[in-house]
Amino acid sequence: MIRAISAGLKPYVIRRRLYSKGALSPTVKEQLLDPPQIGSIFEVRGFVKSIRNSKNVGFVDISDGTTSKIINVVLLGKNQPKLQVGESVCIKGEWNISKGKGQETELKYDPTDPNHAYEIIGTVPDDYPLQKKATSMSFLRTLPSLKHRASTIASFYRLRSFLESQMMDFFNSHSFTKVSPPIITSSDCEGAGETFEIKQSEEFFEKKACLTVSTQLHLEAIALALNRAWTLTPCFRAEESKTSRHLSEFWMLEAEISYLDDLEPLLNFTEEMVKYATSRLVERKEEYLEGTYLDRETIESRWRHILGDWRRLTYVEALDELRRKGINLTFGDSLNLDHERVLAENGPVFVTDYPTSMKPFYMRKSLTFNEDKPTVACFDLLLPQFGELVGGSLREHGHDTLLESMESNTMNLDDMEWYTILRKCGTIPHGGFGMGWERFVTYLSGHDNIRDTVPFPRAPGLCKA
Amino acid sequence: MIRAISAGLKPYVIRRRLYSKGALSPTVKEQLLDPPQIGSIFEVRGFVKSIRNSKNVGFVDISDGTTSKIINVVLLGKNQPKLQVGESVCIKGEWNISKGKGQETELKYDPTDPNHAYEIIGTVPDDYPLQKKATSMSFLRTLPSLKHRASTIASFYRLRSFLESQMMDFFNSHSFTKVSPPIITSSDCEGAGETFEIKQSEEFFEKKACLTVSTQLHLEAIALALNRAWTLTPCFRAEESKTSRHLSEFWMLEAEISYLDDLEPLLNFTEEMVKYATSRLVERKEEYLEGTYLDRETIESRWRHILGDWRRLTYVEALDELRRKGINLTFGDSLNLDHERVLAENGPVFVTDYPTSMKPFYMRKSLTFNEDKPTVACFDLLLPQFGELVGGSLREHGHDTLLESMESNTMNLDDMEWYTILRKCGTIPHGGFGMGWERFVTYLSGHDNIRDTVPFPRAPGLCKA
Repeated sequence: MIRAISAGLKPYVIRRRLYSKGALSPTVKEQLLDPPQIGSIFEVRGFVKSIRNSKNVGFVDISDGTTSKIINVVLLGKNQPKLQVGESVCIKGEWNISKGKGQETELKYDPTDPNHAYEIIGTVPDDYPLQKKATSMSFLRTLPSLKHRASTIASFYRLRSFLESQMMDFFNSHSFTKVSPPIITSSDCEGAGETFEIKQSEEFFEKKACLTVSTQLHLEAIALALNRAWTLTPCFRAEESKTSRHLSEFWMLEAEISYLDDLEPLLNFTEEMVKYATSRLVERKEEYLEGTYLDRETIESRWRHILGDWRRLTYVEALDELRRKGINLTFGDSLNLDHERVLAENGPVFVTDYPTSMKPFYMRKSLTFNEDKPTVACFDLLLPQFGELVGGSLREHGHDTLLESMESNTMNLDDMEWYTILRKCGTIPHGGFGMGWERFVTYLSGHDNIRDTVPFPRAPGLCKA
Repeated sequence: MIRAISAGLKPYVIRRRLYSKGALSPTVKEQLLDPPQIGSIFEVRGFVKSIRNSKNVGFVDISDGTTSKIINVVLLGKNQPKLQVGESVCIKGEWNISKGKGQETELKYDPTDPNHAYEIIGTVPDDYPLQKKATSMSFLRTLPSLKHRASTIASFYRLRSFLESQMMDFFNSHSFTKVSPPIITSSDCEGAGETFEIKQSEEFFEKKACLTVSTQLHLEAIALALNRAWTLTPCFRAEESKTSRHLSEFWMLEAEISYLDDLEPLLNFTEEMVKYATSRLVERKEEYLEGTYLDRETIESRWRHILGDWRRLTYVEALDELRRKGINLTFGDSLNLDHERVLAENGPVFVTDYPTSMKPFYMRKSLTFNEDKPTVACFDLLLPQFGELVGGSLREHGHDTLLESMESNTMNLDDMEWYTILRKCGTIPHGGFGMGWERFVTYLSGHDNIRDTVPFPRAPGLCKA
């Protein structure tokens, strides 16, 4: 039987005998969730992750990437298949209770049994780079197409996918509509000028167009029609920033909510959202974190922080607190990552009511606004060690006040009439926030570099593939 | 009480008395799903959609966009509030069984009752454009920020959001991981040259970069690690196409599946996916289609087509069928929209095994391949009247065969080494498909122009806002 397969029978010849015609091959995740009866013939497809051979028995771990769990294959006898780490294989044998430690079941392959078979679907070269379990992240980053097979990288993707599902459920249960604001835009939301411009835009679109830095302005137009709107969408910033917390192309979860005239419900909602997704993850931690090689204590302490009590401070109170700890800032100074870490030393903290000068044109005046210390109704959510995860605000919904703010920011009012008209036609107090999606995934995974949570990261000098 | 509010009390003063401190205001959707007791005091927030006034009573329809349903407000007595269509309002009154037709409940507002109150949150100018219920689509397209408030447009967005949720459930239940392939790429997937280039890419990324036309190649790299991967992501094509079926920026649902060596399971899976989302929609049709002004018969006939039997034809069989109907094409000719409509006259049809010359480099040879009529293992899904919805194929997984194909397409092999290396390292037979997301939403909604299903459409000469 081995000879027949090696001689050129394709793997679907095996499969068609076992599975209904025209169905997809079962995944390892499906096989482990709904395992066959002990003693029955069973077939697994995946990559050889590790091999331990001894004289009369071999042990092979097979993974197909759908779960962090693996299927253990026991190869009996002397004529064991010659397998290499990294090869894609299909092995058919008997499903058994395992005698080994750390696993409940295993696939027994006996070359003398005519019902057992294996095939090497794809071989690997001798220098196949993913040999060891705990390959370093910096080495993996040099392998743009193969790194996804590393357990830790794959676990980031599964975690990210799981969190997106949870967010979908969360927003659905709060009457939000998920929408797709444009990527290509003629409006620079933040006014910071760090946009990527489309080369042929002036001829193609008959106006200068660039990639969006935030979909907020468009999301406002939609939320002022549908009451509540959210999106999870790519955003782009042409910052020359090469840190582990920035990407030139990143995904942002943005939400916009009508009938909001106070920061408090917005803070409550943000906290509820972050805690919701985190608690769903904690319930399924074995599924999403087994098999990664990140520090378990770091992961669990981050989860505890998220699920614990959150503080709320105004920017002015934050300056006072920093002063008591020996850091002297004056009103109008930015908080850098070190300051943020001091404030969030013992848990997440919302810092609210930042100075007007530090924030974009669209934010509404704060309740504590005064001419000496002008502030806006906004917040940053700071996490222990990590710094900012979410930023949000109430938006100025009064037409004339908004125009004043835009004028003092020397913006082109004609270009923005599509936006300001919203304040003339049935305006509504509203607000919202943006959350860096890779930052959220990174924080919850216990990792420290957002570049590894996205399959093909883009940053200055980095556009592989 | 009216005077007190008109004199400047803000709406949250009302709300805070009725709802827990710091919670979001309830939406109309939530209020209708979980209505208050008959006779209790109740408050609605939304836009005035229509007004009918008579001497002693007025009828106002209020919508907040979270549902196609409205709340009917009955204004009693002579001193009725002066409201305008389009204004955002907050009205507090008594929740009652309705005496009118077509509605079960209503909000009764009595100006003499001290517990009743209203506030106009945002006024509208006299020339507010959204006056009539059935405003034409072409007129709405001239209103980039206000059109979202039109019932039909809002229903597209809610439908789109619902379908995305269903897809998430569908792919989750089939062991897929949702991933985020890059938008900015240095690899042109289709090789058609219709990419948008990023102006400052050569200095910023140190190589020429453009916006992706399809994420397939990157998705293959991920699927060859995680077994199954899908994405719903923006794609960009710089085609000078101004039809109702094309956008320069559109969203594409792409899926890639390992261990596929035959088209049949891929066709089955595609059919199952489309039917799954459609049948979930049919179950909730009142929620998603009430309030739109599209032709109900068109909508329901499209749903019936989707849920009925689908045919499967090879390209060569399709030519034969066209010939019998008087359309003479020869092997290698493209099928245009008219041809597609003839083939899909009575229901959806998969056309498979197109000529190699018509398809991109990465497709695997067909089982029916011969040197005279070379074909690839691919399919297009054609819908009645509508034409192509999905296109997919098996991908060439053999290293040398892939390189031959790339060479005969005069591609730069060095640039694509990140992709071809996948075939050297544990390659796996695989395949997948791409579905135009706006096309799917448009078809199921009974509409005929994909531009209206995305809030800010981009097309040649069109980049408003």
